[in-house]
Amino acid sequence: MAILAIGSVAFDSIETLEGRRERCLGGSATYFSLAASFFTDVRIVAVVGEDFTEYEEARLTRRGIDTRGIERLPGKSFFWHGSYLEDMNVAHTLATELNVFETFSPKIPEVYRDSDFLFLGNIDPVLQASVREQLPNVRMVVGDTMNYWINDHRENLLKVLPQLDTLTINDGETRLLSGERNLMVAAQAVLAMGPKSLIVKHGEFGATAYFGEQAFAGGDENPAEHHSHHDTMPFRAPALPLSVIVDPTGAGDSFAGGFCGYLASLPKITPAAFRTAMFYGGVMGSFAVEHFGTERLEAITRAQIDERFAELKALSHLLD
Amino acid sequence: MAILAIGSVAFDSIETLEGRRERCLGGSATYFSLAASFFTDVRIVAVVGEDFTEYEEARLTRRGIDTRGIERLPGKSFFWHGSYLEDMNVAHTLATELNVFETFSPKIPEVYRDSDFLFLGNIDPVLQASVREQLPNVRMVVGDTMNYWINDHRENLLKVLPQLDTLTINDGETRLLSGERNLMVAAQAVLAMGPKSLIVKHGEFGATAYFGEQAFAGGDENPAEHHSHHDTMPFRAPALPLSVIVDPTGAGDSFAGGFCGYLASLPKITPAAFRTAMFYGGVMGSFAVEHFGTERLEAITRAQIDERFAELKALSHLLD
Repeated sequence: MAILAIGSVAFDSIETLEGRRERCLGGSATYFSLAASFFTDVRIVAVVGEDFTEYEEARLTRRGIDTRGIERLPGKSFFWHGSYLEDMNVAHTLATELNVFETFSPKIPEVYRDSDFLFLGNIDPVLQASVREQLPNVRMVVGDTMNYWINDHRENLLKVLPQLDTLTINDGETRLLSGERNLMVAAQAVLAMGPKSLIVKHGEFGATAYFGEQAFAGGDENPAEHHSHHDTMPFRAPALPLSVIVDPTGAGDSFAGGFCGYLASLPKITPAAFRTAMFYGGVMGSFAVEHFGTERLEAITRAQIDERFAELKALSHLLD
Repeated sequence: MAILAIGSVAFDSIETLEGRRERCLGGSATYFSLAASFFTDVRIVAVVGEDFTEYEEARLTRRGIDTRGIERLPGKSFFWHGSYLEDMNVAHTLATELNVFETFSPKIPEVYRDSDFLFLGNIDPVLQASVREQLPNVRMVVGDTMNYWINDHRENLLKVLPQLDTLTINDGETRLLSGERNLMVAAQAVLAMGPKSLIVKHGEFGATAYFGEQAFAGGDENPAEHHSHHDTMPFRAPALPLSVIVDPTGAGDSFAGGFCGYLASLPKITPAAFRTAMFYGGVMGSFAVEHFGTERLEAITRAQIDERFAELKALSHLLD
């Protein structure tokens, strides 16, 4: 099963307590796709400038990622300059250059039309909605957003949320979107905005999923069979405690990549599969932050992923 | 098996976003003992003033807690006035009156000498050390501390740490004690100060245990039998997401009470038991914060505790 991922393919200059890198390959679609590529086929829709060369493209195609939906325009790619010098959990933006992204109008290649998963990376909700409309029959839609869209493009964002099976945002974004301080109250308020389920990411403390009544009802021949008590209970997946966090950039998109990639590899999305997918999300997020940019995600193997999955299970499960 | 708990028995005036209460029964030994009393026998060593009446004492003895070690002195009991108005995770101290606590010199009643668990609540490390010395043969010693002792009584605290089987502190205290920012590095540095294991509490995100080599070696006829890989791997226990947190006071002591109480009820402390005990700690912490002071802990039943334990397991375990 193939995932279509739309988002940014960008260059990032990053400063952290562990050092700095100039113009790493980055962007939400890049991190997502690399992480998901270990589980299933991934296709990117994005726009880049002339600075995105064969070298960068090969780093994606080497992982089997379909790059035919990456449009090339004259000019430069999206560029972000950020630092995490005070707190590894908080990105401080030093510069953002939209460049070719400013006029991005996503075009879905004909060969991508049979994708059955859709990941809407953190971009303008108007673009997210337009892509969603072009792919009405996908099996699952997972979306991300951020403070900027929540604050300044709220109405457009609220139109996208009911189109999502799963929204993935962090603690602060959940509070901002809902206006509620208590995370559980905030999560219920966000669910009421339309997504069938919500994953709230807690950084180094993992992530919690909250489910609406319809979370596992879609596409089911006998919807009643899955309506057990467990299905709509929250689920908390841990993150792996790491002694060195080199660069937190892309952790959330890598989480989404592991989560969607695993689910897309299965014939059916069940509550058990959703939980396992969140563990794979945590695994991919933990790899992403171990080196600058996408270096670590590009170097790992599927065996290492499964080893870390087992660690995450051992970290969090009772032994009885 | 009986636990001896030393700490404060106090009155707290508390302001939170949910309201305020004047002079609730509080203190580390109070919360700890109430939580532990659902699992095993508990004995308190503390000092109170004339404001601690038969009414307060009955609230402890009703739960089977042995109060013969609570010394009564002329004057008033320890008093704390705090608020959580900005952030439910951060206590803001408005007033502290040591009162009779200022000259507290713990005396262990003869009938308490056969206790086999010791909880050293958050008090002067000199007092913690003196109580520990008076009970050299206990099976397990669990200790707590706080920023004030870490900052201003560091040398005395460092003498207590090697006497502990388990130290329970929160994220901020772990960073402060170690001088390290990364929580895993900080935890390893604290373990190097002597406690055999360390539980770092993350508030609403649960708690992580870190183990030294000797964590499960003590009192074992054949220490080699337990040295599996799992024994020294960290363990992360979740907290229950709560939609209403009325009063966070005592959550950490209630966690310690559930943790110690469960372990003290068992013949042997194994890695599996340690993990289960952390879940019971999370359960008792979650009850403690649902009402002001100790109201909720005094009202629950063992059946409710086990129900919540099952919820915490369902919240965090894979379904495969």
